[in-house]
Amino acid sequence: MNRAEISILLVCLLVVFTIGCNQNESASEISQPEAGTTSGEVNDPLPSWNEGASKQAVLEFVSEVTNEDGDRFVEPVDRIAVFDNDGTLWAEQPVYFQLLFVMDRIRSMEADHPEWRNQQPYQAVLENDMQALGQQGMSGLMELLMATHSGMTSSEFDSIVSDWMASARHPSTGLAYTDMVYQPMLELIKFLQHHNFEVYIVSGGGIDFMRAWAEPVYGIRKDHIIGSTIKTEFDYNDGNPRILRKPEIEHIDDKEGKPVSIDKFIGRKPIFAAGNSDGDLQMLQWTDSNELPSLKVYIHHTDSAREWSYDRDSHIGQLNEGLDQAQEKGWTIVDMQTDWNKIYKAND
Amino acid sequence: MNRAEISILLVCLLVVFTIGCNQNESASEISQPEAGTTSGEVNDPLPSWNEGASKQAVLEFVSEVTNEDGDRFVEPVDRIAVFDNDGTLWAEQPVYFQLLFVMDRIRSMEADHPEWRNQQPYQAVLENDMQALGQQGMSGLMELLMATHSGMTSSEFDSIVSDWMASARHPSTGLAYTDMVYQPMLELIKFLQHHNFEVYIVSGGGIDFMRAWAEPVYGIRKDHIIGSTIKTEFDYNDGNPRILRKPEIEHIDDKEGKPVSIDKFIGRKPIFAAGNSDGDLQMLQWTDSNELPSLKVYIHHTDSAREWSYDRDSHIGQLNEGLDQAQEKGWTIVDMQTDWNKIYKAND
Repeated sequence: MNRAEISILLVCLLVVFTIGCNQNESASEISQPEAGTTSGEVNDPLPSWNEGASKQAVLEFVSEVTNEDGDRFVEPVDRIAVFDNDGTLWAEQPVYFQLLFVMDRIRSMEADHPEWRNQQPYQAVLENDMQALGQQGMSGLMELLMATHSGMTSSEFDSIVSDWMASARHPSTGLAYTDMVYQPMLELIKFLQHHNFEVYIVSGGGIDFMRAWAEPVYGIRKDHIIGSTIKTEFDYNDGNPRILRKPEIEHIDDKEGKPVSIDKFIGRKPIFAAGNSDGDLQMLQWTDSNELPSLKVYIHHTDSAREWSYDRDSHIGQLNEGLDQAQEKGWTIVDMQTDWNKIYKAND
Repeated sequence: MNRAEISILLVCLLVVFTIGCNQNESASEISQPEAGTTSGEVNDPLPSWNEGASKQAVLEFVSEVTNEDGDRFVEPVDRIAVFDNDGTLWAEQPVYFQLLFVMDRIRSMEADHPEWRNQQPYQAVLENDMQALGQQGMSGLMELLMATHSGMTSSEFDSIVSDWMASARHPSTGLAYTDMVYQPMLELIKFLQHHNFEVYIVSGGGIDFMRAWAEPVYGIRKDHIIGSTIKTEFDYNDGNPRILRKPEIEHIDDKEGKPVSIDKFIGRKPIFAAGNSDGDLQMLQWTDSNELPSLKVYIHHTDSAREWSYDRDSHIGQLNEGLDQAQEKGWTIVDMQTDWNKIYKAND
């Protein structure tokens, strides 16, 4: 993603934020979906998945690559699975939750920054004036991002995010954000780990934003959580060393950035990849090029009653070119409405 | 490490290379040291370590942090151990082995580059003219590094390094480089892993240079091997995607760069760190600042008969400020001559 694309993305985020917060499909209004599966299996590893092609594809793939006597066996060391986060493991509407953190954080920092009351882009956030915020464009959003993500130590940032996550609630569902992770995906992660897959998150979201809360939520170690990074610096600080977060983006972990960070952090090509947007396409292409058997999965947001419904024209999580390639190449497309009998962990 | 420091380092390497290759202390001449330990333990996890303060410090530390009933217990998730590579896990004389790879690689590429015969810095390498090579300075060495480390895909580079490692022999010992890893450190890695430590390499060496061979040699997964990086790029390549290696340094994983990459790749502060030079000092300081119990270890090259003896004035692996701080703060200083009854794995 180049600077121009980042700009477009961020401006789109603002537009969506302006118009999207009134959206009224809410998880809290979800009626309990059909209970359990129809398979009758006692030990179904994926109880929130309805029987069908998607569930079948996952079960067959794992069965084949773990069958030592079969011709599609994959050694445990090569069982690398990568998951996008926003829109794949948890919801991403009306905007990426990390953006909602930014807004909340600006508000909570107001007391220490009285000058922000008359200074854009802060004033727009503090006055909840989305039109004015939209007018700040790329540079305004970058300023908000850096004001909230840099200028502190790595451990201070971790505490800030943890504290926010413990108390913040989603604007339309009223749920804790960590209750808006998808129950079927939690089951899938656990199922893969149980079969000796190393499961990683490879997300456009901030690496340290995710690591502050994701480890216990997903059961994925911090060193398996990969994302966008800002520059950091070691400061000896007279014998009390610290890592300082600098106001400069280092890596955008989206589109072409995903296979690059997979190569750098993991050092192996995945055999399993799951995403939900065009930002994940290169990660799925990279996985698809593995000489070993591989499974590529797109989560398709089709459920406007229980979650949100969007794809080709969405400003968040646009799935257009990816949907074409997935259909053309026979990748697995998960239809959230029909394939999942539960959406959120909160529904448990 | 800034550009000036890199320059100084690389020029020093050249100087050492020029004068160091005649060194005649060689591992192949090593007489078998005293056999085993004197402890009489049947299941000594560190048989190549002589009884003494260093071995005792390691055993006590691991015993304490794994004792659930003690007040120094550390949860498994926080048992992070980091090891430098050059001079800590394997030898580094007369120059870093990766530099020897560069030289060999230039020679093996000669057939495809007839122009190199009359073009510096290549001519100097091809004619083994170390004096001329020394005159090329920083820019010449960077050119050699980029000529051998970029311009190919990540998987091609992996094969090139693997092939070299399988056939190359050390100029003075005649050993395969992978036989010049330290047997006592292999035992230490295994011992820590056995007690549920996550063991990482954090080295100034190239991340992909190491990953090409280190996984089976050390028993450390590729995603636990961290090092210096050059920029890479994803290329869709008409449906045959690849990662291209670009001729640009991205991160030097030395000195302040080590805690920075620990924070980025691991996301947790170590409780155990081992290094051998001032380049590891910041990593040990970072570990020392952990609120949990921690052990900091310096490997001190004191054995000119079985390996090499060097510290404060060495151009490779200089240990000066680090030695002062280690003594001042009571860190564990391993005396290779007296603490180890074996040096190389090859001696097994």
